[in-house]
Amino acid sequence: MQITRQADYATRAILYLARAGKDQRISTSQVAREQKIPPSFLAKIISQLSVAGLLHTSRGARGGITLAREPDQISLLEVIEAIDGPIQLNMCVEKSGACSFDETCPIRPVWCDAQNELVSKLKNTTFAQLSP
Amino acid sequence: MQITRQADYATRAILYLARAGKDQRISTSQVAREQKIPPSFLAKIISQLSVAGLLHTSRGARGGITLAREPDQISLLEVIEAIDGPIQLNMCVEKSGACSFDETCPIRPVWCDAQNELVSKLKNTTFAQLSP
Repeated sequence: MQITRQADYATRAILYLARAGKDQRISTSQVAREQKIPPSFLAKIISQLSVAGLLHTSRGARGGITLAREPDQISLLEVIEAIDGPIQLNMCVEKSGACSFDETCPIRPVWCDAQNELVSKLKNTTFAQLSP
Repeated sequence: MQITRQADYATRAILYLARAGKDQRISTSQVAREQKIPPSFLAKIISQLSVAGLLHTSRGARGGITLAREPDQISLLEVIEAIDGPIQLNMCVEKSGACSFDETCPIRPVWCDAQNELVSKLKNTTFAQLSP
């Protein structure tokens, strides 16, 4: 039960861009170097963050990446889910029918509560808060 | 970020025993059948729960498994960790030095808080509460 290393790298890349400011274009090699992210990992992570609408990428000699939104409009949850997919602490959470006991299981509500609390916490944490 | 299917099966097996009562000896085949757990999975799960001190096993014609403690002395956390190992939402939580930024990273405290909340919730949920 752990976020992937890729999702952790993604949060660090977005944090780096948030600290630089929304309109600051930064080369991927600079992000990789400063955040100690293997460049081959970072390329795929940037592609996924771009597909999720969190980054803009531009090519060429003056190319690079910029945040697609202000840091206060990007939550920790969005970045993690852009890489790892929806958080689901147990297979039965937010997916009825995954387990034949889900209607009567007394453990399922504990997972649903725990998941709601975790998701709320990550959703309510923006990169503006993280990069004051 | 999800508990394994084996950890989920383990919680169901312990729940089944808790509902039967602490001193009730139950055959593994009954647990497997009633809880729809593949017998080959269950054998390994029972072995891990026994090593963790949560179950007693006995062999022979009248053999089976019993809870090693009263249901109010067994938490959801213990059962999950007996199978999946310690919960760690991100590699940096409760392990300084896992990331070269851990001293200054503003995201790490969010993970530490989220983990504390999740662990507390699972620790404070006993099988007595789940099987009233």
